[in-house]
Amino acid sequence: MKSFLYPKINPPSFMWVQPENGVMSKVHEWIQPITAITDPEEAKNAEVVILGVPLSRSSISASGASEFPEAFRRSWRSFATYNLDDDIDLSEMSVLDTGDVPMHVTDIRKCHENIVEASAAIHGDFRNSKVCAIGGDHSITAMMVKGMHKANPSERIGILQFDTHFDLRDMSDNGPSNGTPMRNLIESGVVEGRNMYNIGLHGFFNTKDLKQYADEKGVNYFTLRQARKKGIEETVLQCLDELSSKVDTIYLTVDMDVLDIAYAPGVPASTPGGMTTAELLEGVLEVAKHPKVKAMDIVCLDPLKDTNAQATVKLGTHVFLTFLTGVMLRQRASN
Amino acid sequence: MKSFLYPKINPPSFMWVQPENGVMSKVHEWIQPITAITDPEEAKNAEVVILGVPLSRSSISASGASEFPEAFRRSWRSFATYNLDDDIDLSEMSVLDTGDVPMHVTDIRKCHENIVEASAAIHGDFRNSKVCAIGGDHSITAMMVKGMHKANPSERIGILQFDTHFDLRDMSDNGPSNGTPMRNLIESGVVEGRNMYNIGLHGFFNTKDLKQYADEKGVNYFTLRQARKKGIEETVLQCLDELSSKVDTIYLTVDMDVLDIAYAPGVPASTPGGMTTAELLEGVLEVAKHPKVKAMDIVCLDPLKDTNAQATVKLGTHVFLTFLTGVMLRQRASN
Amino acid sequence: MKSFLYPKINPPSFMWVQPENGVMSKVHEWIQPITAITDPEEAKNAEVVILGVPLSRSSISASGASEFPEAFRRSWRSFATYNLDDDIDLSEMSVLDTGDVPMHVTDIRKCHENIVEASAAIHGDFRNSKVCAIGGDHSITAMMVKGMHKANPSERIGILQFDTHFDLRDMSDNGPSNGTPMRNLIESGVVEGRNMYNIGLHGFFNTKDLKQYADEKGVNYFTLRQARKKGIEETVLQCLDELSSKVDTIYLTVDMDVLDIAYAPGVPASTPGGMTTAELLEGVLEVAKHPKVKAMDIVCLDPLKDTNAQATVKLGTHVFLTFLTGVMLRQRASN
Amino acid sequence: MKSFLYPKINPPSFMWVQPENGVMSKVHEWIQPITAITDPEEAKNAEVVILGVPLSRSSISASGASEFPEAFRRSWRSFATYNLDDDIDLSEMSVLDTGDVPMHVTDIRKCHENIVEASAAIHGDFRNSKVCAIGGDHSITAMMVKGMHKANPSERIGILQFDTHFDLRDMSDNGPSNGTPMRNLIESGVVEGRNMYNIGLHGFFNTKDLKQYADEKGVNYFTLRQARKKGIEETVLQCLDELSSKVDTIYLTVDMDVLDIAYAPGVPASTPGGMTTAELLEGVLEVAKHPKVKAMDIVCLDPLKDTNAQATVKLGTHVFLTFLTGVMLRQRASN
Amino acid sequence: MKSFLYPKINPPSFMWVQPENGVMSKVHEWIQPITAITDPEEAKNAEVVILGVPLSRSSISASGASEFPEAFRRSWRSFATYNLDDDIDLSEMSVLDTGDVPMHVTDIRKCHENIVEASAAIHGDFRNSKVCAIGGDHSITAMMVKGMHKANPSERIGILQFDTHFDLRDMSDNGPSNGTPMRNLIESGVVEGRNMYNIGLHGFFNTKDLKQYADEKGVNYFTLRQARKKGIEETVLQCLDELSSKVDTIYLTVDMDVLDIAYAPGVPASTPGGMTTAELLEGVLEVAKHPKVKAMDIVCLDPLKDTNAQATVKLGTHVFLTFLTGVMLRQRASN
Amino acid sequence: MKSFLYPKINPPSFMWVQPENGVMSKVHEWIQPITAITDPEEAKNAEVVILGVPLSRSSISASGASEFPEAFRRSWRSFATYNLDDDIDLSEMSVLDTGDVPMHVTDIRKCHENIVEASAAIHGDFRNSKVCAIGGDHSITAMMVKGMHKANPSERIGILQFDTHFDLRDMSDNGPSNGTPMRNLIESGVVEGRNMYNIGLHGFFNTKDLKQYADEKGVNYFTLRQARKKGIEETVLQCLDELSSKVDTIYLTVDMDVLDIAYAPGVPASTPGGMTTAELLEGVLEVAKHPKVKAMDIVCLDPLKDTNAQATVKLGTHVFLTFLTGVMLRQRASN
Repeated sequence: MKSFLYPKINPPSFMWVQPENGVMSKVHEWIQPITAITDPEEAKNAEVVILGVPLSRSSISASGASEFPEAFRRSWRSFATYNLDDDIDLSEMSVLDTGDVPMHVTDIRKCHENIVEASAAIHGDFRNSKVCAIGGDHSITAMMVKGMHKANPSERIGILQFDTHFDLRDMSDNGPSNGTPMRNLIESGVVEGRNMYNIGLHGFFNTKDLKQYADEKGVNYFTLRQARKKGIEETVLQCLDELSSKVDTIYLTVDMDVLDIAYAPGVPASTPGGMTTAELLEGVLEVAKHPKVKAMDIVCLDPLKDTNAQATVKLGTHVFLTFLTGVMLRQRASN
Repeated sequence: MKSFLYPKINPPSFMWVQPENGVMSKVHEWIQPITAITDPEEAKNAEVVILGVPLSRSSISASGASEFPEAFRRSWRSFATYNLDDDIDLSEMSVLDTGDVPMHVTDIRKCHENIVEASAAIHGDFRNSKVCAIGGDHSITAMMVKGMHKANPSERIGILQFDTHFDLRDMSDNGPSNGTPMRNLIESGVVEGRNMYNIGLHGFFNTKDLKQYADEKGVNYFTLRQARKKGIEETVLQCLDELSSKVDTIYLTVDMDVLDIAYAPGVPASTPGGMTTAELLEGVLEVAKHPKVKAMDIVCLDPLKDTNAQATVKLGTHVFLTFLTGVMLRQRASN
Repeated sequence: MKSFLYPKINPPSFMWVQPENGVMSKVHEWIQPITAITDPEEAKNAEVVILGVPLSRSSISASGASEFPEAFRRSWRSFATYNLDDDIDLSEMSVLDTGDVPMHVTDIRKCHENIVEASAAIHGDFRNSKVCAIGGDHSITAMMVKGMHKANPSERIGILQFDTHFDLRDMSDNGPSNGTPMRNLIESGVVEGRNMYNIGLHGFFNTKDLKQYADEKGVNYFTLRQARKKGIEETVLQCLDELSSKVDTIYLTVDMDVLDIAYAPGVPASTPGGMTTAELLEGVLEVAKHPKVKAMDIVCLDPLKDTNAQATVKLGTHVFLTFLTGVMLRQRASN
Repeated sequence: MKSFLYPKINPPSFMWVQPENGVMSKVHEWIQPITAITDPEEAKNAEVVILGVPLSRSSISASGASEFPEAFRRSWRSFATYNLDDDIDLSEMSVLDTGDVPMHVTDIRKCHENIVEASAAIHGDFRNSKVCAIGGDHSITAMMVKGMHKANPSERIGILQFDTHFDLRDMSDNGPSNGTPMRNLIESGVVEGRNMYNIGLHGFFNTKDLKQYADEKGVNYFTLRQARKKGIEETVLQCLDELSSKVDTIYLTVDMDVLDIAYAPGVPASTPGGMTTAELLEGVLEVAKHPKVKAMDIVCLDPLKDTNAQATVKLGTHVFLTFLTGVMLRQRASN
Repeated sequence: MKSFLYPKINPPSFMWVQPENGVMSKVHEWIQPITAITDPEEAKNAEVVILGVPLSRSSISASGASEFPEAFRRSWRSFATYNLDDDIDLSEMSVLDTGDVPMHVTDIRKCHENIVEASAAIHGDFRNSKVCAIGGDHSITAMMVKGMHKANPSERIGILQFDTHFDLRDMSDNGPSNGTPMRNLIESGVVEGRNMYNIGLHGFFNTKDLKQYADEKGVNYFTLRQARKKGIEETVLQCLDELSSKVDTIYLTVDMDVLDIAYAPGVPASTPGGMTTAELLEGVLEVAKHPKVKAMDIVCLDPLKDTNAQATVKLGTHVFLTFLTGVMLRQRASN
Repeated sequence: MKSFLYPKINPPSFMWVQPENGVMSKVHEWIQPITAITDPEEAKNAEVVILGVPLSRSSISASGASEFPEAFRRSWRSFATYNLDDDIDLSEMSVLDTGDVPMHVTDIRKCHENIVEASAAIHGDFRNSKVCAIGGDHSITAMMVKGMHKANPSERIGILQFDTHFDLRDMSDNGPSNGTPMRNLIESGVVEGRNMYNIGLHGFFNTKDLKQYADEKGVNYFTLRQARKKGIEETVLQCLDELSSKVDTIYLTVDMDVLDIAYAPGVPASTPGGMTTAELLEGVLEVAKHPKVKAMDIVCLDPLKDTNAQATVKLGTHVFLTFLTGVMLRQRASN
């Protein structure tokens, strides 16, 4: 069974059987896989589009982040569509799950090409939707953004990044791995360094040459210490203000390793001294409210290393739902 | 061996052998099981009474919370009676462990009846004591409060609840499960909705209809976000102020799932974005100081899912000892 | 969405999306949920019928065996339909997954009634099929057999049991728990003690009174030591020979706790000194080949306690596929 | 509370509360701690005496084997007194739990002296009982045997050892650690090398010089490969035959590291290629039947490294109960 | 620091500091990394050569098998050089650790080329040595054998494989992944199907088309059931006999997934019903004694999924040392 | 291989192989073991000296803290030398790893003497360096400080302690265990009680008599609640101000059990309600900046109980690097 819309995207591997009474209150009852859609036009109206990007063989360290898209979908059963904090019901939005980019086992370049193509196809079709990529490792960000650029070449793209690392490693060392996405985008001319904003850097997890490269290219960053002193919300707002004066579209990338290792047992690259869950959720909510934010991704979450209770998978899903909340609050405010 | 006082309550399954020199400095050397008491009258003077309520087959999801009362007692060896923060020694209080409510393997209704009866018996005997129920899942709260009501039908009861959920599910769906205790109390007329205060709701863990039911019944609640903004202590004080103007007795129920999943690996229903340990302990201490608070419970902690170091079991015991601290601080202040 | 055939059975909670090319080589591509069937008559031709029985709140100890039916279905992706040992392809058989018996959260009696009804309905419809119940705890066996009896009251039923325990506890103590199924069947007159054969008893895991009860009722048993001395295959054949001379239909029940604890980390009641995996698979294969064996179950496997690699869930599925292999070998031999 | 009999032995830290009806069918209802005994003479009639020896700071590698005596006692609740394999009820024997040898935190020599003294006291009092020491690490064996020798200096002692290692390391290197007990006994003249029999050596876990020392001293050993070829039971019988012609008393020491690492996750020194559970239980049963076997120990089991299900702790307890079974079978055969 | 001999092979990442007294009794004191060698000629005399092959991004499922070479070296401290079973000391052999094949993060083809080159270089230099490759996933086997062929093109190569799978998947699907090494070798003409012998196939872990391909190409195989019936040793001897009549050189590949999942928690692809440790070690020892066996590998062991005690890593090292034992026994027998 | 400088200190057990190009950016490429140094005079210029103190058999509870020095060195590969928060590169400092104090398996007194001697030797040689001891349990602190005192008898020493406990237990109970270091120093006259400052006490983890002893001896302490109210940084500054007016040298001891149990799974004595990672790092940084701080230790971290991702080991290393950062910031400020 292939999706009618995207023959080059694999549909999700399974479908939740829907409740007979038609009442939906849990996320898995609400978000529809593309294989459940019968009317292409209806599909095109989705306000949010999900794309799974199950690639982690491009990671420097052995990673099972490729398993997150499936774990993400399975975790939906643990979440209501109703957001109590803001008294809104996400199920009033239409969200479409297009499935996963197909991957090749031994040809990573091919995997990356597939991601660019899938991203371009979806950004081409869904010009008014938010596109959420569920990684996968951080190498996918460069590919998702390139696809976005391919679909809308005239739009200047800016990036807001929550991350413990710059991800500016030299691609000539080991190709487009998970340590390189930001450099990849700079060197390919898709995003200028000065249009990148990183929040969350800290500790002993970046080499000096990366910082120097960042400075040369004008990459903007707030260390976690600086962001805490200023306030996470205020820091995010400043980044968005600056960005929106310079670009047409903003892409949010959430590298889950920005979290403290106590909060993210399922993120092997998370470190001591990182963000708390509350700080990350506060930041993501604020970003999502900005009208220029058109796409986002969640990367580097490895369910194979998670706790039995799947604490980190649930947190990844919470980040996604928080993003949707911000989007909906904006819409409501706009109306 | 049965207790002389409560033939229908099983004594704790084991007794700590006491130190020869009679010096007690650890909690397990201090709290006496009812089987170690020879004088019923002496027992009746206990300032605090413990009742284990090892029921979790009434949980919606598979739960081992029934194992908490035993794990709770075993953990006592890790705690001193001396509280350094407040420079008081809890061993100056008398605490009686009456044992566990007997449970039936396949008749949950019978289990619930046993809890009501045990609660009524203890509340009837110990009119000036604090009664602490150690769950078990949250279904026991409705039963403990009904027993309290049965013992003192003329007293109006209010509830302060730390919880991620409303626990207002419809009993007609699946009976008095762990999702229903508050609704159970409202529908049975034992506690009015307007006399319930919930602190800690957040995220995507309650469906919209439950919120609507809460509003209809006048249930009061502070989301975790609101409570943090106002301050946990201040929020608790406001709840207590309002409650004490309306009721005679206050019951505190601590659903451990109010905690962030990073702090409570042994609480399967805990979620990302919940309370920190410091916040919960701050709240419980403040509640315990209020003179109208007569009873409390700790529920939904599943030792079978805890870490090897029993991090969550220890946290549950810490909540209990913090409650006792508040009680003792009040007494000292009153004298 | 409800199944057209069995409105009182919940369909499986999810469906695997099938491969576009229609080639099926993995178990999840082969076994169809009832919701994927459009022709009731076609469904009725299934050679094997699966019924999930997600009940474990009737367990004496806290258990998550209720999660096994879902874990069982998820594990299908790890198994080919082709059996190399015997050079047969299971996909030549038709297997129908009818879904799960609906359970009530707080009324265990109702759960048990639902199982009896579902079993009777299926045994009534599928008179030439093998019926495989996926537990759940061992209390379900009594209910499945009662349903079988209800559907075919004139048939004498015998039981072959792989188990570390007699499961002959007195129901007057705690109702029809997981310790009672065999006694339940004897006392209700559905199966005579002399038509029960237990293989695998060993060690210190049965009290003396149970052994005495077994002897009084003529229950047959081989301890694991005896079975090893004689040979597992030979022991099974002797049981089947004796049984087939006395009954019309044989029910196989596999309590996974018959396995040594080293082989079954996900079975909390497994013990040191139990069966090896190889021994159990050898036994099950032999049973399945017997033409009078009409139904089987797999019980007491708790996925929540399994290893990360789901070693025990996979073993449970292997037991099921081994049973199907025996059935198919018999058919082939008969033709 | 100290025991009236052995003021220098700490009573068990806790007591199980006994069933009111006096019916005992589980091990914890049967084995009495010394603190529950009121008549010293009655205590003296115990057929089996248990002594906990919670010392593991003498281990070469960091070990929590000191926690086994308590874990052993807690595990009793999982075992019936009735042995189905042999149709005997252990509760017909009288077993006395004298508690634990007191240990010093920083003076290991003192710990060892305490063990010698406790062993001598108990062997002096209980001349017709079997003495079971529950370790602790293997250094305790030398001390238990020395105490035995002190109580009965004229008796020649032989040792049967199940072990992956010789435990013949040179004490001048690091004192009487867990690698030295057999050499300690040879060098102190308490047991002759030729009266030691080791079953289970295998693989790459002993250095050559230890083998040479063993040969010089005439220590007897069967590698696991040799024992398997000959049969475990036959090997044990040959050892016992030879030993009983040379000594008055036989001491059995079970180093749990003789087990394959797959069977003993809670024994850090267990290795690939070791014994299966079935083999060890078969061996222990045979040893226990021999009338000259007067004492035994179980060592090097670290509950802190065990699985959540406490697979290895349960196995250790099973070894103990199997030993008792052998003793009882002998008695029955003698009568 | 690069090795003087193999500039294209990375030296091991660390060196054990050697004991001052020069006495070596543990494996880590004996096996020298190439960086510790000062005389190239001396290096060339090594009887055994180790090559780490840390590649697992070519695995179909997410794998950390790339971490095994380092874990393997770290585990050496747990093993003596003395083999008690056979009374030989491995340290009389000279073993050289040449380090690890360098890998590229995103170019798997390049990784594979590097392996072929490294293998060719080493086989070219060490014509009388045994070459042991430490994987990595099973894709490396095709590359190691190709390198061997490149170094000695005139020699016919045969393969003895312990495996649960055929590893004959079609490379046109996903390139030279870990599912394809045997087909890769057949299709590239390096090894004929009839010169491949697989021992250990079982269960539901191979699709039918693979079996058909195997039969077409004349691949020989014994299922585990067949091998057990015949005896592991006898099966191995028969394979070796047949092979040695057809080829000049035999390559042994040990896919650790041949083991039962209870014995190999650190091998994600291991399955219920596989080999026991004792069976595998018996088989490997027998293979190693054959004079035509010139090279071997150990693959698919993922230390990131191993138990805390590193049970599977230790087992992998035990397989290696057992191989060396066979080699040494042969040499001794030849002299 | 022994170090030329300290024949009584064991060199680290392994050496990292250095990168060929000589560029060092990771901690393991920077910090040199003493065995890699050829010029003793060069060694003497080290600004920071590391001494491993692998002793934990002196712990009251079974502990594997002896494994931390090795785990600490292995973790270096996960850390860059560049500190982004403060834009400094630690590799501009010279750091020397002298190895580990040799320990005796069964003579704890000898272990302690070895520590005192090693500390005295190093403090004697490195008068201008910071000395960092990597424990081990907290008993080592008394020995390190005694060695420091022995090397410089005329200097008054003060102690700043991050700890959940007083560590003032009576040595007459169980010798110099991990519960006694502060009392040991007071009673031996090496440090006066009034020159000790403890930050982090909280909860129910100290008995009343210890508090009384602390008060008698004038030990200063801020509970965690007090420190939080005042601010961690401010609290530390006040302690340092007071201390520097009274002593010549300040010793920092970080007992990792000061952390909340959610942040320190690898510290068995950590408790609910402790410090967050952010708080501890803030405190350590501030201490390190003070010129009188000459030595520090990190104790009670047990890698055997850590998570698979080694969250706590990494945190311990982060504490060490944060200390170095403070030292370097001070130097830079001074220049």
